[in-house]
Amino acid sequence: MTEIDRLIQLLARLPGLGPRSARRAVLHLIKRRESLMQPLAQALGDAAEAILICGTCGNLDTVEPCGICIDEKRDGGAICVVEDVADLWALERTRSFKGRYHVLGGRLSALDGVGPEDLNMAGLVARAETGDIHEVILAMNLTVDGQTTAHYVADRLSHTEVDVTRLAHGVPVGGELDYLDDGTLETALRSRRSVG
Amino acid sequence: MTEIDRLIQLLARLPGLGPRSARRAVLHLIKRRESLMQPLAQALGDAAEAILICGTCGNLDTVEPCGICIDEKRDGGAICVVEDVADLWALERTRSFKGRYHVLGGRLSALDGVGPEDLNMAGLVARAETGDIHEVILAMNLTVDGQTTAHYVADRLSHTEVDVTRLAHGVPVGGELDYLDDGTLETALRSRRSVG
Repeated sequence: MTEIDRLIQLLARLPGLGPRSARRAVLHLIKRRESLMQPLAQALGDAAEAILICGTCGNLDTVEPCGICIDEKRDGGAICVVEDVADLWALERTRSFKGRYHVLGGRLSALDGVGPEDLNMAGLVARAETGDIHEVILAMNLTVDGQTTAHYVADRLSHTEVDVTRLAHGVPVGGELDYLDDGTLETALRSRRSVG
Repeated sequence: MTEIDRLIQLLARLPGLGPRSARRAVLHLIKRRESLMQPLAQALGDAAEAILICGTCGNLDTVEPCGICIDEKRDGGAICVVEDVADLWALERTRSFKGRYHVLGGRLSALDGVGPEDLNMAGLVARAETGDIHEVILAMNLTVDGQTTAHYVADRLSHTEVDVTRLAHGVPVGGELDYLDDGTLETALRSRRSVG
């Protein structure tokens, strides 16, 4: 197998790329050998060595504990629980949450064989039990597995003093009622709020 | 900028990946640090160093001239002209062409400002003029730019002795007439062949 085939094979294993788009990517890279291919090789190697998993919250960073856990300007009393680091990044992009996080590293799923022991639950319970936390916000995906996980987390925290909250469910910003699924519309109607 | 951000930024420059899928890819890579991330860094570095462009045909390989140009079992008298290496790979996957190739490295495009001087034309004319070539097969894409390029190549070869041919146009295998565009159907009708 040549270097080209090996590179195509590895790139094809990335999510969102198949053999065809991996071939396109390789040709794109070879045409930009100095500006993209070599920097990417370097960045992959650097990141593979530098990235650490935060022992406190499960976030990825190059320092441990992570930048969010050691940021004194953030509210250490509020923890937002997410399934995955991607969800943490999505919330951080909104710049509207100033507390800290807890990454479960997955969601409960009978189909995929993911049970409570596969999630970073013990760490969350221990954090909640310290008494320093006043609120835990459940920010799981609004899927069956995500909501099962949310119920489970709430249950595991019921013996502590923390307030357990969840994200609001309803019509997304920019959403047109005519195009929304029935479930979302029903939820939005049921959770309606008084105006003014 | 952290190593994570830099990696996302570089991956997002690959065709078919945007910022969102680059983020997903990075998380996928970090979870498979030893099985995918480090091998990919290595493969990119290796390929960036090892891959050469064939001075004869423009193909990519780790030897120069490329494996196809030096393969004695292939017919040196037939040259298939393609726009890009991806097209050469596509033809090679069919295992039905036993001649050699010539990669133009693009197509004529007034919109993109690609003129004849940007294509690897001189090399093709020189190869055709040696007298060792009996057939040149034009295998450009069936787009306006591709066919403009094909006409141009045929024109540039008109003073030589070679037979210039092109791929057949018509109904693709598995194609349902009802779903075909009018242009393809019209071409297929016009180029109809006698049966049996």
